[in-house]
Amino acid sequence: MDMPNLRWWGWGTLDQSYSLDGRPAFWPTLQQWLELPDESIEHEIPPVPLNDISLPPPRLDNASLAFLYKLLGKEAVRTDKQARVEHAYGKSYRDLVRIRAGYIPHPPDVVIYPADEEQIATLLAWAADHDIAVIPFGGGSSVLGGVEPEPGDRPALTLDLARLDRVLSIDPVSRTARIQAGATGPEVEAPLNARGFILGHFPQSFEFSSLGGWIATRSGGQNSIGYGKIEHMTLAVRVVTPVGIIETKDTPATAAGPSLLQTLLGSEGTYGVITEATMRIHPLPTVQDYRGILFRSLEDSIAAFRDLMQSPSLQPAIIRLSDAPETAAYAVMSHEHHGLRHLANRLIAGYLKMQGYDLTTGSTLMLLGFDGDAEWTAQQWNLALELCADHRGLSLGRMVGKSWVRERYAQPYLRDTLLGHGVMVDTLETATTWSNLIHLYEAMIKAMKEAIADTGGGPGYVMTHISHAYPQGASLYTTFLGRQVPDPDPLAKQAQWQAIKQATTEAILAAGGTLSHHHGIGRDHAPWLEKEIGAVGIEALHALKNTLDPAGIMNPGVLLAP
Amino acid sequence: MDMPNLRWWGWGTLDQSYSLDGRPAFWPTLQQWLELPDESIEHEIPPVPLNDISLPPPRLDNASLAFLYKLLGKEAVRTDKQARVEHAYGKSYRDLVRIRAGYIPHPPDVVIYPADEEQIATLLAWAADHDIAVIPFGGGSSVLGGVEPEPGDRPALTLDLARLDRVLSIDPVSRTARIQAGATGPEVEAPLNARGFILGHFPQSFEFSSLGGWIATRSGGQNSIGYGKIEHMTLAVRVVTPVGIIETKDTPATAAGPSLLQTLLGSEGTYGVITEATMRIHPLPTVQDYRGILFRSLEDSIAAFRDLMQSPSLQPAIIRLSDAPETAAYAVMSHEHHGLRHLANRLIAGYLKMQGYDLTTGSTLMLLGFDGDAEWTAQQWNLALELCADHRGLSLGRMVGKSWVRERYAQPYLRDTLLGHGVMVDTLETATTWSNLIHLYEAMIKAMKEAIADTGGGPGYVMTHISHAYPQGASLYTTFLGRQVPDPDPLAKQAQWQAIKQATTEAILAAGGTLSHHHGIGRDHAPWLEKEIGAVGIEALHALKNTLDPAGIMNPGVLLAP
Repeated sequence: MDMPNLRWWGWGTLDQSYSLDGRPAFWPTLQQWLELPDESIEHEIPPVPLNDISLPPPRLDNASLAFLYKLLGKEAVRTDKQARVEHAYGKSYRDLVRIRAGYIPHPPDVVIYPADEEQIATLLAWAADHDIAVIPFGGGSSVLGGVEPEPGDRPALTLDLARLDRVLSIDPVSRTARIQAGATGPEVEAPLNARGFILGHFPQSFEFSSLGGWIATRSGGQNSIGYGKIEHMTLAVRVVTPVGIIETKDTPATAAGPSLLQTLLGSEGTYGVITEATMRIHPLPTVQDYRGILFRSLEDSIAAFRDLMQSPSLQPAIIRLSDAPETAAYAVMSHEHHGLRHLANRLIAGYLKMQGYDLTTGSTLMLLGFDGDAEWTAQQWNLALELCADHRGLSLGRMVGKSWVRERYAQPYLRDTLLGHGVMVDTLETATTWSNLIHLYEAMIKAMKEAIADTGGGPGYVMTHISHAYPQGASLYTTFLGRQVPDPDPLAKQAQWQAIKQATTEAILAAGGTLSHHHGIGRDHAPWLEKEIGAVGIEALHALKNTLDPAGIMNPGVLLAP
Repeated sequence: MDMPNLRWWGWGTLDQSYSLDGRPAFWPTLQQWLELPDESIEHEIPPVPLNDISLPPPRLDNASLAFLYKLLGKEAVRTDKQARVEHAYGKSYRDLVRIRAGYIPHPPDVVIYPADEEQIATLLAWAADHDIAVIPFGGGSSVLGGVEPEPGDRPALTLDLARLDRVLSIDPVSRTARIQAGATGPEVEAPLNARGFILGHFPQSFEFSSLGGWIATRSGGQNSIGYGKIEHMTLAVRVVTPVGIIETKDTPATAAGPSLLQTLLGSEGTYGVITEATMRIHPLPTVQDYRGILFRSLEDSIAAFRDLMQSPSLQPAIIRLSDAPETAAYAVMSHEHHGLRHLANRLIAGYLKMQGYDLTTGSTLMLLGFDGDAEWTAQQWNLALELCADHRGLSLGRMVGKSWVRERYAQPYLRDTLLGHGVMVDTLETATTWSNLIHLYEAMIKAMKEAIADTGGGPGYVMTHISHAYPQGASLYTTFLGRQVPDPDPLAKQAQWQAIKQATTEAILAAGGTLSHHHGIGRDHAPWLEKEIGAVGIEALHALKNTLDPAGIMNPGVLLAP
């Protein structure tokens, strides 16, 4: 019923990993940047085996289990260790240091797999009567504690939507599709692609995250510039709340009062369970032409980026602009036979340097792509290259684009490797207007670097890309690396991470950035939500929560801090 | 403090009207279509003079008035008859039949003009303490009873935002502008245009409606295809509620939980007073190239419309497709020296007929326009003409476009003339997906025509345009005309209108249309809101209302039926 072969202690499936073959500079460079001790490089600490993990016993009595068996069938109710461990956490750095150490004090007591909406409605009524917390679970790739049971005595039931995985109908005239919430990225796209359509939502978690999870967290995919964030793609939703079903109308727009749709988008399972949605779809592009453009400075490249977003003639599918540190990381660490490193190795680096570019100190790499047919994408590229040239951007051609596409979902596997070698690695993201972007960028990075050093993380390495852009502004997506504190206690590693998260988040908010552009709130951001939306805004969300979930059973502690 | 010279009993200002000079076919055609008696044509019944209207005395005691004078200054507090009459109703047919007859049982007791947000916050606290209803008032052009005081004993205070009329700041880099809520269309656009920008919101009420009103009602302007509806244009809002201020962040997108912004959009003054907003703005186009395209049938023209909306290469600013009855009305009634009638008169009608078009029975007229620079609009037109030709669309050139632009805000004046001649005229609008559009169109018109006949309105005349479109669907905007019941009692005329409204609204909802695409809910649509959003949805809106306005003073009876 679950994805087979899941790597419960890390990312994805056990048969995949991020190979460092062909990347000879990887470890030496990383060691230098992070000042890693030799033994970190030499020794990999594996996760605690599943057999060695002990969980608290399930807190559901026999009557409760009997009820669940009767409602759902025995095979759809799991209390075994593997199911409970696989559903205990999301996939953040904080989650992985805990699970790798076998530290799971609050796993769900039971994991269920309902087959339809009626079972969900019955289940929620029963859970409300019995004060059992219900955690809707899609792909489980939350990086903010969005699927983690609360501490405390209340039993927790994880409601895995894996069986609601179908595209129910496609309307080719209106370009819409009704899709069940549990469908993962491939389960969404395959039936659409077969009919000549595409949804176009490609978060890095694409293979393992679900439509319902995307909607619940206001997710953004890598091609959000072309296809929109999930809140732009979603035409209507159906949500089973403990007090009944809300179904919004599939009208392309409406003036019928405040938007319930946009209230349910981002509700993170705290109001109810999203069961299906009607999505805007697009014709499947025949060409995806992605290329790398190199700029001499961040300023030049941001100006080009903004022009691309504000041009009435250009409709890019994707733009990702790496700052100098991220560009350097690509140049040094990517595979020697393709990508930016390959270009650098081909002695092109000398030529680039003569032209005022430097792949390792100062230049910035933009990935730019157009989705469409051959004629249209060619026209778009002609215009785009002209525009980039106005900002001294130099096309590196399609190899860089192809290399990125090949690895677009792979990096989280690398994180597992790094964690085993004593490296702390996490990402943060925010967004603001164009005029505030550099200010936010500098404030965020300064706070982050100071916090890494202050927490014993060494010099750290911080790299950022600008993506998910709009005519009015863009998001910043930052990866930070540092040395893990040597203390093997996962709570010590968590505390180190927490201090960095805290300092950076406060710097983001002080500099006018949003708390999250596309990851959501979960448990990790919940303490700051009031700073984002104000005390009255928090009261409004509590009012909705209390009305739709009067017993307070839906994903407690997520979104709204307890 | 108000707009001078306001036509309190009808539309706009007293120095403007819709001239029927040069339109010799107007009355004869209308008489034939509606089977109007001769005396309706010959005699115009004027509105009751202001002097003859008697209002109930203001229900505020001296202490209350003294408080208001102290808070706002004496000149910003009005209890005179003219102010109370001008703020008693919106501008719907129902409103005008009542005000023309001098029937105003529930005018506001006082009209105030706050100068800033602090005055508004103080005022709301005071009103909550004293159980005084507060009605935020922008331009007063609601057509759904959105600014009308409730019946009953509670005193009503109308809070006119006319003094909050400034563009506060423009960010040319991010293409945003902070604008006060009371700014009318011209007050919004003039400062933006002077800086080379445009907001692009042009409802028919443009001259007399305000930014705050647009946001409160989820308004859509005539150029919404190019610039979006107001909910797409609005980046952030500030709202003074009785429990405090909500300010949403000016981030271009966010994953920080449910969207408070989209909850305040469409709240119709029932949660608080919108005081300012940050809006997305665009470069001022140097060319607006609007032309008429004639199609042989509704089917052909809808197919062309859909293709225009779904083409990746085309970005129209405006598309309005008139069905055959509306096309015929333009052909017969427009001015003999320009517009469609002029074309028809130039013997071109014979040529068109030979080509399979007929301006008076069957053909449909599309107004299509592009905003941009000369080169871009020319390119867009080349593509668009090719696309329209694929659907047998024939360009009628720019004269039709120019004629439409000239009269784009004028038609409501004609309504005042018609009302004086015993004609009932009102508009309705809805929206749905492309695949459901014809079904909705037919169901709505059938119900409307039957209801006009059933209520003694004669054969009636019903005409519709499709506008405000999206890749997924479009809105339908229908104008209906009929004979007023001869009973001079305004409540009899209101009952006739109400029966038609009821039958048509129920047909719209049964056929899958939304309750309103861009007019809002007000009092008139409130009884149907539950059918649109469901019982749980209504509970959610009540929860927000009770939290943000615990005393229930904000625009009571609007949005949520009492």
